[in-house]
Formats: sequence, structure tokens, C-alpha cells
Amino acid sequence: MSFEILKKHKTFDGHTIFCEHSSESTKTKMKFSAFLPKEIGELDSAIIWLSGLTCNEENFITKAGAQNHLKESRTMIICPDTSPRGVGVSGEDDSYDFGSGAGFYVNASTDGYKENYQMYDYILRDIVSLLKEDFKVKNISITGHSMGGHGALVLGLRNPEVFSSISAFSPIVNPMNCPWGNKALSGYLGEDKEKWIIYDACSLIESGARHENRILIDQGLADEFFEKELLTANFENICSEVSQSLRVHYREGYDHSYFFISSYIEAHIDFHLSYLK
Amino acid sequence: MSFEILKKHKTFDGHTIFCEHSSESTKTKMKFSAFLPKEIGELDSAIIWLSGLTCNEENFITKAGAQNHLKESRTMIICPDTSPRGVGVSGEDDSYDFGSGAGFYVNASTDGYKENYQMYDYILRDIVSLLKEDFKVKNISITGHSMGGHGALVLGLRNPEVFSSISAFSPIVNPMNCPWGNKALSGYLGEDKEKWIIYDACSLIESGARHENRILIDQGLADEFFEKELLTANFENICSEVSQSLRVHYREGYDHSYFFISSYIEAHIDFHLSYLK
Repeated sequence: MSFEILKKHKTFDGHTIFCEHSSESTKTKMKFSAFLPKEIGELDSAIIWLSGLTCNEENFITKAGAQNHLKESRTMIICPDTSPRGVGVSGEDDSYDFGSGAGFYVNASTDGYKENYQMYDYILRDIVSLLKEDFKVKNISITGHSMGGHGALVLGLRNPEVFSSISAFSPIVNPMNCPWGNKALSGYLGEDKEKWIIYDACSLIESGARHENRILIDQGLADEFFEKELLTANFENICSEVSQSLRVHYREGYDHSYFFISSYIEAHIDFHLSYLK
Repeated sequence: MSFEILKKHKTFDGHTIFCEHSSESTKTKMKFSAFLPKEIGELDSAIIWLSGLTCNEENFITKAGAQNHLKESRTMIICPDTSPRGVGVSGEDDSYDFGSGAGFYVNASTDGYKENYQMYDYILRDIVSLLKEDFKVKNISITGHSMGGHGALVLGLRNPEVFSSISAFSPIVNPMNCPWGNKALSGYLGEDKEKWIIYDACSLIESGARHENRILIDQGLADEFFEKELLTANFENICSEVSQSLRVHYREGYDHSYFFISSYIEAHIDFHLSYLK
């Protein structure tokens, strides 16, 4: 076992666990939470949940109510932390939208950040290996919220052979063209925008990336970040142009919070279970 | 409207709200959260959730997943804070199990606390009035966790004409005989144990208090406070002696956390809905 269980709580006849392991990608200890509806050995698949800005491994697993919808399945859900923590790089803790709690699921190349902020590889290598080797699952899908929805789209579109299906809540679909994305991509990758393309879901589709299965997105229409940061229509338009199958549900009155996520997580879980079977 | 909505989040086609109002009992502003599956005017009943030590109005409504199980009903759930806050009495913030976050649902009579720590009256008068007058509900049931389970049992047994049904998760059933209870009751009421009896569920049953409907309790067997603080068997024994109808589910492997509550909240909601109809 290459991870340590820090806390374990029986939940819906399965277990919610809070864990720590060593990451080769970030060269740090990293924390994650998970819900296992069955024991290891009886699980057959996993959903990776990528959280948004300011979150850590605790938010989703305590707030979304996902356990209730996975309790009858053989599918676990795993929720990694959103960045390395406490690596001592200058500026790391200065803002909510860059540095700790804001890894943006990229492999940083800028001085100071390139040593540890390798969150794309952390998910694709460390977490996927952990799921296959330690949790013994065969198939994996990916989803997330906001910055984590961006991560799910980018990781899923670049690695369709690894991820059976992709969904997202309120994703940042076009970070090259929004303030959050500009700050993060310039800070982690530098000013050469050619290097940003592989971390921008719209640009990836434009460059030919595809997933064979329909992508599912839920977006609240009362989301305070909808127009300035999320730019959902840009992804809809490019997917439509190139016939990438996509379903976007716009939800009247819903905001950017976990109350929105909890209202539709069952539909996203059912969507992934249909591909993971 | 005698309350102010501070935050409002659409949830399962209803609304989760965070509010503030002025309490006549505590002579302070008090906060509460609630989930309204329907608009005011379309609601017919309410469940009061009383939280445990260290909690405020946020814990249950964000962690328990209750909204999902009330979404089809005309029953709201309201979650009051667990004490007045910031009233400036000496010792108020010194420990997790006394003072702020630990009002114990009693009317304090000791110097310093008697002015504001009137949590029994706050629930019975202010919250019940708020529900009937502002939220326009007819019938009310009561439940809670740990210290809040104690509160639900005491308020429900002393006011069976007000509360249609009573349930509790991991309740402190016999505060006169456990460390948490001794500290709180002596601190809020003084050393005369005659004054403690009306805040002790076991003593209330012994003194003749009854509820016409079966009381429901869920208790985890891996709960770290089970043997020293909760004393569930004392309540079972006294109810059995006097034929107060009671159902206790002991749950193998479950602890004192919200992961336990989330696993069985649906059963408690269904229990209350059956009496609120």
C-alpha cells in the first residue's frame, strides 16, 4: 500500500477515507479523500473529482452528497487536493487564485513553480497509478468543478484512452481568454501563449483533440463567474463546429456553489457509471 | 418578515438560505440556515435540526445531504445556531463544550449566562414562532445530533403538543450522568441537581414525560463518545420500564461524524414526514 489512511468513516455501508501519499510528480506529500462503496478488490472503477479554486481534498467529499449515489455501485470516487502545499516558493500563499489551492492542473515551467507544481502529471501519473495499483480499479472517468472542470476537460481530452468519460460543473473552458486563466497560465507557464494551448479545452478541440463519448457539462445561470470566467458558449461553439459530442445543461437560478453541485451530482455519477460498466 | 436572508442558494429546485433574526429569548441576533423545497405559502410543515457541540448553523445544511430527501416534500428543515455569540461573558470562548457553540438547549440561571444563554426558550419560542408566522408552517417535528439530540429529546418530551415527532442521532440522553452534561448543567444552572432534571431526557421520562409517538434514535457503535457521554442504554431502559415507545438502531462501525448522519438522515426524514402529513 503506497498511501496512509489518516481518517476513516463508515458511510452508507462503505467508507469515506482521508489519506496521504508521496507524489513523484510534485515531490511532496499529497492528500486526497475517497469514498469506497466496497472493499478494495471488490471495486471495478473510479471517478476522479477535481476541485476548484481554494478547495482542498475535503470540500467535495463532505458537501456534495456523492456517497449516496455511489453506494450501490462498485465505483469509488477520489478527490485529490488542488495543489502542493507549503513548498516555500515566493508568492505561493498570496492569492486565492494562484499558488496553493490553485494548481490549475498544469505542469508548471516557471522558476519557483516548476519544481513542485506538476499537477497535470500528479493526476495523470500518480493518481491514475494509485487507482490501478492500490485500489485495483480497471476503468476511470474524470469530472470536476470550475478550475477542476477545466482540469477534467483538459486531462480527459488529452488522454481519451485513460478516461472513459468526461463531465464538468461550471468549468473554466477557455482559460486563455479569461482573467483566472491568464493569471494562472502566465504564472505557471510564462508569457508564451503557444505553451498555454495544451491546457485550454477550447484550443485542444480546435487542435484536433477528441473524446469518443459525449461530454457532459452543467452550468448555473445565476453563477457569478459565468460571463467573465467560464465562457461556456466558447466550448459549445467549437465542439459544435467539429462535431465533438457535448451536452450542456444550463440551469436557471443555480450559482457556483456546492448547493448546485449537490443538486446535479447524481446525474453526473449516473452518466459516468453508464460508461464505466 | 422578521428575518433577513444573508445568502440564498438554489438547491434541488428549492432554496438553501442562511439568515439572521433578533431573538427575544437570547436578546441577541441569532443565525439559522434552512432548506425550503417550496416557496413560503406552499410549505406545510418543518423539521427543526439541533446541532451538536462546536457546530453553528452551517454544519448540517452543508454536510448531511438532507435537501435531497426533502426535495419532493412540502416540509422545510431549519438549523439554528447552537448558542448566542459574542455576548462578552467571561469564559464564553474558553472551551469547546461550554459557552459559545455549546448552549445545551437550556435556559441558564447562573450569573453571566442567564442574560443571553436562553437556548431552550430560543428554540421553543423564537424558532417555533418564526416557523409558524414567517414560514407559515402548521406542524413541526424535532431532531438533532449529540448535544442537539439531547435538545430534541428534552424539547420534544416537554412539549409533545408542539412537536409532532422526535428523533435523534447519537444523543446525550442522560446529561446528569456524563462529563459533558455535568459541566454544562452545573455551569448554566448551578450545583442544585433538582434544577437539572427538566433538561435530562432520562429523568423526564422517569418523572412522567411522554410522547404519544415512537421516538427514533440512531447510534453508531464505533462512536468515540458512546460509552462515556451518550449512555444510550439508560434511555432505552427507562423508556422500556414505563412503555414509552422507542426504537434505537445501533449501527455497527459508524462513528460520531456527519458521515454517519448522512447515511441515515433519509430514514429520519421519512420518519418525521410520516407524522407531519
